[in-house]
Amino acid sequence: MSRIIKGKPVADQISSELIKEIDILKSHGIEPKLCILRVGARPDDLAYERGALNRCKKLGIKTEVIELAENVSQEEFLAELEKLNKSNDVNGILIFKPLPEHLDESKIKNLIAPEKDVDCLNPVNIGKMTEGDKTGFSTCTPTAVIEMLKFYDIDIRGKDCTVIGASMVVGKPAALLLLNERATITVCHTSTKDIVNTARKADILVVGAGVARLVKEDWVKEGAIVIDIGINVDEDGNLCGDVDFENVKKKASMITPVPGGVGSVTTSILAKNIVKACKIQNNLL
Amino acid sequence: MSRIIKGKPVADQISSELIKEIDILKSHGIEPKLCILRVGARPDDLAYERGALNRCKKLGIKTEVIELAENVSQEEFLAELEKLNKSNDVNGILIFKPLPEHLDESKIKNLIAPEKDVDCLNPVNIGKMTEGDKTGFSTCTPTAVIEMLKFYDIDIRGKDCTVIGASMVVGKPAALLLLNERATITVCHTSTKDIVNTARKADILVVGAGVARLVKEDWVKEGAIVIDIGINVDEDGNLCGDVDFENVKKKASMITPVPGGVGSVTTSILAKNIVKACKIQNNLL
Repeated sequence: MSRIIKGKPVADQISSELIKEIDILKSHGIEPKLCILRVGARPDDLAYERGALNRCKKLGIKTEVIELAENVSQEEFLAELEKLNKSNDVNGILIFKPLPEHLDESKIKNLIAPEKDVDCLNPVNIGKMTEGDKTGFSTCTPTAVIEMLKFYDIDIRGKDCTVIGASMVVGKPAALLLLNERATITVCHTSTKDIVNTARKADILVVGAGVARLVKEDWVKEGAIVIDIGINVDEDGNLCGDVDFENVKKKASMITPVPGGVGSVTTSILAKNIVKACKIQNNLL
Repeated sequence: MSRIIKGKPVADQISSELIKEIDILKSHGIEPKLCILRVGARPDDLAYERGALNRCKKLGIKTEVIELAENVSQEEFLAELEKLNKSNDVNGILIFKPLPEHLDESKIKNLIAPEKDVDCLNPVNIGKMTEGDKTGFSTCTPTAVIEMLKFYDIDIRGKDCTVIGASMVVGKPAALLLLNERATITVCHTSTKDIVNTARKADILVVGAGVARLVKEDWVKEGAIVIDIGINVDEDGNLCGDVDFENVKKKASMITPVPGGVGSVTTSILAKNIVKACKIQNNLL
């Protein structure tokens, strides 16, 4: 029987540490602030935004949302970004991806100020994450995976970790962060020949494929730890992960639920990055 | 019986393409130039430098070597780097790592101009390499591995590729470049539990561990392709790779020799990056 490992205790612990740090900052007259620069109003973006604003509010991080029209020009977008980059008041900038096609995402990600880039869009921060250089920021969701593993005392070093999915938002950074923790990593994706057997050799299986209930019981080694990053809506309108939870939990020694798993930790990592950004910008780190 | 795949034909093909490109640049009055900024005179650095200078000379790339004393101060080093960053004459800058301990390597790598960073020290270029963004530069030796595989018509997509070694110079970038070519990648290192069996499942085994003749016959699947990035001097003073070549070649379908393998391609990749840098700086790319 599997132990269901939830995100909330992890988020709570991070929150209680952050509240202390933010109190100290405020006692020095410094208030951390996040600005979300959103184009259009996609339901996914709005859902994440609500969670982020809620988390920031609870912690005492100021927030601002700038909503730009779906058809905003590249020039207007860059003008807003430039303002945020320069503003002494704003410590962290969050931009939802993908941006509409008429905007040049590859240009924009290079222009977000690296020291305010709290979800690791800028190649500078991706590079630092790849190297394991802690002076930058690492992508929130994959970082939440590492925090969960550490919170539940799961030793990563030397473990066979398989990551399903190779996106820049989830799979690739998750693999790099696990490698930096000295796991033996394997990355699978749609071109993988034998994904079932590759998954089945993992001690720790991290799934970020974006396919509802993709990972079945026979994909999982008896006693493996299964971390589900997916968040999907099934045909009945229910939230579910990339793992067939009800069946896989019979084999896994530990498994994260969806909802209530990694997703509950992501906004805490975002908040942690905002506080870090605030400290960097105030020469306190 | 194994086919021994050598680096020279790969280097020759890259060279002949570069000569054409450089001729065109010269017809526009543009001469690509590399500057090597070397601290001290380590034999390894000098060996690589000779190879690089030789390659550049053959191709018509101008070169300059700035040798700084082993005890050069951080300020003096940065002053030299700043001059090269600003010089209109210099297209590519090569700095040998590791730098002496009194120099702040992490600061220096952030200060090398990304558009002149032809061996991918700056996190911006590491980030772009991680993302698969071709506007940057990727580390020369791992890129040479990919060029060799492509030259010998080895299909990478969907192949099980195991990389032994997780350094930022070799293993980690090799794994990322293979992943970007859609291989299923596994990265092993000194913390890996069962390196022999992990290596043995690879269709393509890439070895950059820095240990003479580490990989034995029983580490290799019958018919695997073995790429040896290592370069070591054995107890008899002979150059050898990280693979026990004489024994492993009986099992591999293709294998690179050392010397004469990947190492022969690296300076061609460097030259390719210098020409690319030159084009970027002249708005020709």
